[in-house]
Amino acid sequence: MDRDIFYRIVEGRRDVRAFRPDPIPANVLTRILGAAHHAPSVGFMQPWNFIVIRDTATRALVKASFSEENARAAAHYSGPRGELYRALKLEGIEDAPLNICVTCDRTRGGLHVLGRNTIVDTDLYSTCCAVENLWLAARAEGVGVGWVSILSEEALRRILGIPEHVTPVAYLCVGFPEAFYAEPELERRGWRVRTPLDQVIFNERWGSRGNVTRSRP
Amino acid sequence: MDRDIFYRIVEGRRDVRAFRPDPIPANVLTRILGAAHHAPSVGFMQPWNFIVIRDTATRALVKASFSEENARAAAHYSGPRGELYRALKLEGIEDAPLNICVTCDRTRGGLHVLGRNTIVDTDLYSTCCAVENLWLAARAEGVGVGWVSILSEEALRRILGIPEHVTPVAYLCVGFPEAFYAEPELERRGWRVRTPLDQVIFNERWGSRGNVTRSRP
Repeated sequence: MDRDIFYRIVEGRRDVRAFRPDPIPANVLTRILGAAHHAPSVGFMQPWNFIVIRDTATRALVKASFSEENARAAAHYSGPRGELYRALKLEGIEDAPLNICVTCDRTRGGLHVLGRNTIVDTDLYSTCCAVENLWLAARAEGVGVGWVSILSEEALRRILGIPEHVTPVAYLCVGFPEAFYAEPELERRGWRVRTPLDQVIFNERWGSRGNVTRSRP
Repeated sequence: MDRDIFYRIVEGRRDVRAFRPDPIPANVLTRILGAAHHAPSVGFMQPWNFIVIRDTATRALVKASFSEENARAAAHYSGPRGELYRALKLEGIEDAPLNICVTCDRTRGGLHVLGRNTIVDTDLYSTCCAVENLWLAARAEGVGVGWVSILSEEALRRILGIPEHVTPVAYLCVGFPEAFYAEPELERRGWRVRTPLDQVIFNERWGSRGNVTRSRP
C-alpha cells in the first residue's frame, strides 16, 4: 500500500555521515531537488535556493569552519561523554560526492507576503519543509543525507558568497551511504534514546494527557 | 516503484482550507503523529510536542486571534489584490474535525545539545521537519492539512497554556478535504506562480548558474 511505502521511507531516513564516493546520477539529483521545491511555503513564497557544491577547495573551507565550531562545542563535554562525543563522526563534507546548501531569501515576494505578517520566521519554517522533502526524496532514491549544523552562518555566507538578506538554513552532505542503519546514529551509539510517542502528545492543552487519538469526541 | 509513489505524495500535498466534518480514525491519527515523531532532530533532541485540539471553545478563541491578525494583514492590500485577498479562504480552524499545535521546547535535552552550539534555532528547524513529515503522512492517508500562520504566538501560548520556554511553531487544521486540487490554492486563484526549478538552483556559489545536475565533475 502507498502509505506503507511512505512510512517505510520516513522510518528508514537517517542522518548519514559516511558516504561512498560514487557520483549521484543527474536525473536522481534533479528529482530530489524537485521534491524540495514542491515543499509548502508561506504565501507560496518559495524562499529557498539550493547551492550544489562539488569544488574541493570550497569544501575544505567549509570543513575548516566545522572543525573550529566543533572544537568549541566539544569543550562542553568531559569524561566518558566527552570521549563518546569526540569518537562520533559528525559530518561527511569532504567524503560525500556533493554538498547542498539550502538558503532562505527573506526578501522574496516583497514587503507583504501572504500569511507572513504576524510570524516573520515562517519563511525559514518553509525552507525547513523543503529540507525535509529533499531528505525523504533522497531516502526514496537510496541516497543518504547528513545535515551539518556545526557551522557558522557567517562562514557559510563568506565562503559561498551568500548576501546578507539570505539565511543559510541547512548545509547538507549528499551521497550513497556506506549503510542505512536501523536506528539513528546517536541512539545506536548510546548518546540519546527515542522518546515514546505518547509522551510527546497532549490532549487539548499543554501538559494534559488523555486519549488523544480516539476517533470520536 | 516506491520512489514514484513518494513523489506522487509530495506533489499531491496541498495546503487545505476546506474540510469535511468526518472524524479522523484513531489509527490514522496515530500513524500521522508517529511519522512526525520520526523526523530528524538536532542531537536527537526531539523538541516537539503535538497538542491535539477538538474543543470548540478553544477553537473559537484561536479563530478570534486569526480574525484579528488577518484584519491587520489584509490592510496591506488594496484594489483588485485586496479583493482577491479578502476572497481567499485562509483557514479551516472550526470546520476541520481537529487541530494540532506543533510546539518546540527550547530547553529539551539540557544546556548543551549536540549540534546546537553554533546555530541555536536548529531546534525550531527540526520541529519544522516534523511538521512536514506530518503533512506528507496525512496526504498518504488521504487526509488534508492546512497551516494557519496568521496567528499570534502570544495568543496561542495563552489559549493553550504553553509555557514561555516553548515556541508554538505550527497551528494545523487536519481533516478529510473537500478536494485535493492539482495546483496550490494560491496558484489556482492567481495569487502567485510556481518558480521554475532551474531558477532556484545555483552551481558552487550563490548566484552562479551552470549544469548543476551533471553526474560527473
